[in-house]
Amino acid sequence: MSSPETALLADLIRCPSVTPAEEGVLAILEAFLTPLGFECTRLKFEGGSSYPVDNLYATRKGNREGFHLLFAGHTDVVPPGDLDAWTHGPFSAEIVDGVIWGRGATDMKSGVAAFCAALLKAHDSGVLDHGSVSLAITNDEEADAVNGTRKLMEWAQAQGEKFDFAIVGEPSSFEIFGDSIKIGRRGSVSGRVTVEGKQGHSAYPERARNPMPALASIATTLDAPFDRGTEHFQPTNLEVTSLDTGNPASNVIPAKGTLRFNVRFNDTWAGETLLAEIERRIANADLRGCTARMEVLGPISKCFICPPDGSVATLRKVMEAYTGIAPNLATGGGTSDARFIADYCPVVECGLVGATMHQVDERVPVADVEKLTGLYAKIIEAFMTGDGR
Amino acid sequence: MSSPETALLADLIRCPSVTPAEEGVLAILEAFLTPLGFECTRLKFEGGSSYPVDNLYATRKGNREGFHLLFAGHTDVVPPGDLDAWTHGPFSAEIVDGVIWGRGATDMKSGVAAFCAALLKAHDSGVLDHGSVSLAITNDEEADAVNGTRKLMEWAQAQGEKFDFAIVGEPSSFEIFGDSIKIGRRGSVSGRVTVEGKQGHSAYPERARNPMPALASIATTLDAPFDRGTEHFQPTNLEVTSLDTGNPASNVIPAKGTLRFNVRFNDTWAGETLLAEIERRIANADLRGCTARMEVLGPISKCFICPPDGSVATLRKVMEAYTGIAPNLATGGGTSDARFIADYCPVVECGLVGATMHQVDERVPVADVEKLTGLYAKIIEAFMTGDGR
Repeated sequence: MSSPETALLADLIRCPSVTPAEEGVLAILEAFLTPLGFECTRLKFEGGSSYPVDNLYATRKGNREGFHLLFAGHTDVVPPGDLDAWTHGPFSAEIVDGVIWGRGATDMKSGVAAFCAALLKAHDSGVLDHGSVSLAITNDEEADAVNGTRKLMEWAQAQGEKFDFAIVGEPSSFEIFGDSIKIGRRGSVSGRVTVEGKQGHSAYPERARNPMPALASIATTLDAPFDRGTEHFQPTNLEVTSLDTGNPASNVIPAKGTLRFNVRFNDTWAGETLLAEIERRIANADLRGCTARMEVLGPISKCFICPPDGSVATLRKVMEAYTGIAPNLATGGGTSDARFIADYCPVVECGLVGATMHQVDERVPVADVEKLTGLYAKIIEAFMTGDGR
Repeated sequence: MSSPETALLADLIRCPSVTPAEEGVLAILEAFLTPLGFECTRLKFEGGSSYPVDNLYATRKGNREGFHLLFAGHTDVVPPGDLDAWTHGPFSAEIVDGVIWGRGATDMKSGVAAFCAALLKAHDSGVLDHGSVSLAITNDEEADAVNGTRKLMEWAQAQGEKFDFAIVGEPSSFEIFGDSIKIGRRGSVSGRVTVEGKQGHSAYPERARNPMPALASIATTLDAPFDRGTEHFQPTNLEVTSLDTGNPASNVIPAKGTLRFNVRFNDTWAGETLLAEIERRIANADLRGCTARMEVLGPISKCFICPPDGSVATLRKVMEAYTGIAPNLATGGGTSDARFIADYCPVVECGLVGATMHQVDERVPVADVEKLTGLYAKIIEAFMTGDGR
């Protein structure tokens, strides 16, 4: 007899919900949550120069004076890649020797299944009636993220929803389960610098202006440190991700070249102040009479940090009691949908170790999913019955 | 009544001899030279990872104790490009208002036609009988140049041919006819540097090694001066011609990047010493744990210089008497087939102004071709009858 979380996780994995294809995955959650008293609203958001996305908002209002806990997660998965490379099919959900296999097993259908199963326990024990719990589930976290959590949060605010604390169920543990939660994320911004000179013959450089040395100078100045890090964050880091010219002719000095970069920045900077610093560095580079133009590519993800007191302190206490480890307060790694929630309430990421996420043979031990379910149940109980605020 | 040089030039232009297609152009020369007592040998060279090329060696031995003058040139032309952009067809040889139009009009069917017509005069006046004149004509100077002048010279040496002086009929004048001859050329070498690091996620640079800063450092160090120039040459110059990565993903640190360069080098360097200096600079660049590997692309063209005394002094005297200007001794610009002749005898380039070469609407005033014919006739006379050695 498999546990409710294992059965639910298997059902979710069997839906090949590669972003943005929903493939029935949200209906499975609706069917699980509705009997527990959740009011489910399916929300299809579109526009923003991206594809339409299916989302689910589920809410259960027990005591409206009590704590309102938000759980956020995603049901979409990254593509499986080469199917032949998988030991067990990526959408098979096969369980072999206590391990469940498939795309999304760690990132993050397991987190969604564990939280739902924890709600089942909390419902059966009456804990849910002390406060309110809501779930914001999107089917687009892995790709554009334009019509997902960001719009779900805007919609919820427009409905008058107010949250005391949010948990994103992403894999957040570092080496062993529960050793780390993420209380913030660095910001991220990407850009392209185009340097234009004047084309000419390699034998007559005096008649041309080669943009390559200017491009190298810009790459060097952008690569220099931006800060030394802050209390909760590592230093801001810029990576030059591509230098491109596309000139195959060795006797031709090219007219232009481009540089692409990505910056992960800490709370020393807002997106705008960081971009101003980048512009300043480019202007001060050795441009040799060439012109340089910077464009931002894609959205700017801002840096956010959740204060480590209040609900975070409560969460840590619950986790230490459950796992025997006080979780580290981390801010490393890439971005997540938590950045869209940070404007509305304190938010942390709390989940499994993500060892196999995005890889071939993604899988998770069933015991880990059950352990996570137990933790989520303790967290729900603590916030519903205690004074987590 | 058009002059022999104009009629011959028109015949040559009408052959669309885009490298390496011969299109009958060499047969026209054979038909012109044979009646003047030239022994013509058609030589088809092939191999060397290039296409087969038609070449012509023509020689007239008057007095074997006399001076042996070599004329070198090419009958192939670069492609005409957009035919609709031409005012008169690129292979029409139309003469309008004293100007003859067509691909090769300056580079360098005019030089070949003028020299042949000068030989006609020298033949008729008996000048040719004082010494020997040979012509090495290839139909591949504009492209690979693998099966052209280089092999013609090897073949001639194998036949026991020895030359006192060689004139390449390329456009060599700078602003007005006769203001400049080229007594040497810089060397040229191209290469590619591949920098390899370790791919990774932009958010986790500590797990990757980004090759982009190393690439920028190499570009900067290679861009620094190599020397200050020498008596006859401008400073050696390296141009970085391309920086390439091809990484479209801003969240990915690329595994490798490449840099391409071309150097035009003076007589401070041999190809090998220059490449050793480039290797030294790369090794001393800020490689950040990445590896860098340099490859030479294509052949190394060595630098050569013809001593400005002896035959060059004779040539200058003849030119000054004919045009009223003592020609400047130049070494600038790109490479030419003169580099293949420099191993066998002193060689200079002496020809028209090349204003429209390689351009749409390439053309030349008929008067200029006739002036060049007159100059070549004076040069032939001076070397055959005087003591040019």
